[in-house]
Amino acid sequence: MNAIKTDIIDLMEGIGQRARAAAAILARSAPEQRYEGLCAAADSLLAHSEEILAANVKDIQAAQAKDLAPSLLDRLLLDESRVQAMSEGVRQVAELDDPVGQVTDEWLRPNGLVIQRVRVPLGVIGIIYESRPNVTADAGALCLKSGNTVILRGGSESFHSSTTIHGCMVAGLQKAGLPEDAIQMIPTTDRDAVGYLLSGMQNYVDVIVPRGGKNLIARVQSDARVPVIGHLEGLCHVYVHESADINKARDVVLNAKMRRTGICGAAETLLIDRACLDTHWQAIADALIEAGCEIRGDSKICELDSRAVAVNEADWDTEYLEAIISVRVVNDIEQAIEHIATHGSGHTEAIIAEDPDAADHFLHDLDSAILLHNASTQFADGGEFGMGAEIGIATGKIHARGPVGAEQLTSYKYVVRGTGQIRS
Amino acid sequence: MNAIKTDIIDLMEGIGQRARAAAAILARSAPEQRYEGLCAAADSLLAHSEEILAANVKDIQAAQAKDLAPSLLDRLLLDESRVQAMSEGVRQVAELDDPVGQVTDEWLRPNGLVIQRVRVPLGVIGIIYESRPNVTADAGALCLKSGNTVILRGGSESFHSSTTIHGCMVAGLQKAGLPEDAIQMIPTTDRDAVGYLLSGMQNYVDVIVPRGGKNLIARVQSDARVPVIGHLEGLCHVYVHESADINKARDVVLNAKMRRTGICGAAETLLIDRACLDTHWQAIADALIEAGCEIRGDSKICELDSRAVAVNEADWDTEYLEAIISVRVVNDIEQAIEHIATHGSGHTEAIIAEDPDAADHFLHDLDSAILLHNASTQFADGGEFGMGAEIGIATGKIHARGPVGAEQLTSYKYVVRGTGQIRS
Repeated sequence: MNAIKTDIIDLMEGIGQRARAAAAILARSAPEQRYEGLCAAADSLLAHSEEILAANVKDIQAAQAKDLAPSLLDRLLLDESRVQAMSEGVRQVAELDDPVGQVTDEWLRPNGLVIQRVRVPLGVIGIIYESRPNVTADAGALCLKSGNTVILRGGSESFHSSTTIHGCMVAGLQKAGLPEDAIQMIPTTDRDAVGYLLSGMQNYVDVIVPRGGKNLIARVQSDARVPVIGHLEGLCHVYVHESADINKARDVVLNAKMRRTGICGAAETLLIDRACLDTHWQAIADALIEAGCEIRGDSKICELDSRAVAVNEADWDTEYLEAIISVRVVNDIEQAIEHIATHGSGHTEAIIAEDPDAADHFLHDLDSAILLHNASTQFADGGEFGMGAEIGIATGKIHARGPVGAEQLTSYKYVVRGTGQIRS
Repeated sequence: MNAIKTDIIDLMEGIGQRARAAAAILARSAPEQRYEGLCAAADSLLAHSEEILAANVKDIQAAQAKDLAPSLLDRLLLDESRVQAMSEGVRQVAELDDPVGQVTDEWLRPNGLVIQRVRVPLGVIGIIYESRPNVTADAGALCLKSGNTVILRGGSESFHSSTTIHGCMVAGLQKAGLPEDAIQMIPTTDRDAVGYLLSGMQNYVDVIVPRGGKNLIARVQSDARVPVIGHLEGLCHVYVHESADINKARDVVLNAKMRRTGICGAAETLLIDRACLDTHWQAIADALIEAGCEIRGDSKICELDSRAVAVNEADWDTEYLEAIISVRVVNDIEQAIEHIATHGSGHTEAIIAEDPDAADHFLHDLDSAILLHNASTQFADGGEFGMGAEIGIATGKIHARGPVGAEQLTSYKYVVRGTGQIRS
């Protein structure tokens, strides 16, 4: 921390103080007011579509000059339909059930005390993200919905786009009479600002949510002096049990691997029972190969199928995020569970089986954030779970696990009503 | 970390590996087995009462030789009734509802997926505590109940007592056929072991729970590289609203301050409405003075009552943990809320009022872990909340807040059942 420039410290201290002050107001704000703010922000995004796209052109030009990879450029790029989708996303968050103030539990004590557990906002959330400018709107919206104030720190590549989007979110806050400081964006790309956000703002920031690649997450995990809700790798497995329906197995494996290969819920390893290899392998392999997927198989698979290449030990621990799948033949469900427990990242795993006992065994014994029976791992997503949106998928077990939506951005307080009880 | 001795690192690595291995077994263990283990541990504590007391004598003698403060000696001291209470506590934890496997939410998606949220253990919990040997039994029991394995690190003063108690807990595990390593105690008082537990065991430990004084908590918060569920100060307030019933106000203030002054739920500051000063002050002050409490009042209180001494600004931020109370006269509920929001530690606050709107206002606007209406702050306790026992009271807002019992030592996983759904 000794290397952080004093002007950045001053800047960040100001942001922190304003965030904390706004949090106190937001925590007491009416749900209707937050709803109104979100709708107004969604309107503002649409109304300022041209300015957002113009700002995005600046970012894209700068990125091209820096020879950014095509996949990064694609994440950065906005067009009219993406701005519309962003606005629509904010509106969807507005329509979610308001989590703040929900009574999640209530009980009566023998001495007459009535105890309620009531949801409250966490307070101030710091979001550190990379090139996707839409996170500015998504994260701002989810935090506002859940009564939290947010300090946004986007990637330098998307700085102009994010700044313009941020302006629209603030316009929504203003329209609803909410404090502008409820959604702040750090107005500099200086890396010291991230350093201070992680290590110097314990008094202002309640939790940090990093959203990006491995390097970002690793830096946040190592430097943060406040709690982090983050996700590490998504090394997801599909296990085809001997009782699996062939068509389901084929369709789910294909979808889990190939629908989108670059997302954390994409399958990386296929485990298949020895007992159904003769009946099931051909259909699954044909579908994968036809879709352009490379198969890295163990010796049994390579013996069976000349299209497969030999897998290495390191493959079992590799999140490809590409059109590659590692395949292992297992003797039984125990060996499949053992493999996943050893090599998995605790994100998402699926079993394909018609035998309900096998499914229950798998769902019970494994401890990943999401376990699916006869469904694709690509359902690992807040929207698909019905949460409306997500700020990320947590692979840790503290606080939130799996998709992190508005509800997961809350804590709770206990409200206890008595009639003069004292403790004996 | 570079200063940690290699033999300690080896010791701790072994403990971590065994804890992780035991966690995998425990997570799949049947509730009945954990119940049996707890009952057997409770039996063992009773059966070995004499050995525990003999070990305690050693600790007490060493502490006396070191001139430990009487309050610390009292925390350290065991007698037959305290051992009985410890055994009884373990039995009570056994009788709690088992949180593991509980389905806390379930919903159906339009595509037919059925999503359940199911409680699971956190994994491995590290507990760092000080002189009270009974924490060995309490914490061990709560972790076992919730399916977690635990690494216990007690204070050096209570080492012999804790080691003997730990032996009884392990006997319970053995009797139930559970892995002995489910409850481990670090078999050395070397401080390097704490250092390594905090900073070097990210691969083995999921969360650290410190239980002790400010210095311990501060060290843990600053050095831990894994999540911490901790409690900072308990700077608790009682606010007497002008509508308060005089007897309730007197009884609750007296109890909140004086029942036990050394616990975190003890009140430190009394706020009283100017409008009821003439009617309510005398009764409250008489009760406090009679019980031996020093009153540090603001200028209005000192003017009114010659028994009060003048309060300093620093008093408003002081957790006395003694028979001292600071008293401020406030103009109205807004000023009371403002004072608590500024000076409180977010632990526990009470309002004494007959006016239900005033109570709702207070309970709604303040954001402490526990807010009480017409009841003593000394109810801030897992047992009093009906949780059976607690491992501590969390003042942070991430993961758990307020009393931390067996349920709060769990996370969840999502179990999703489909019929071959793929994502479009």
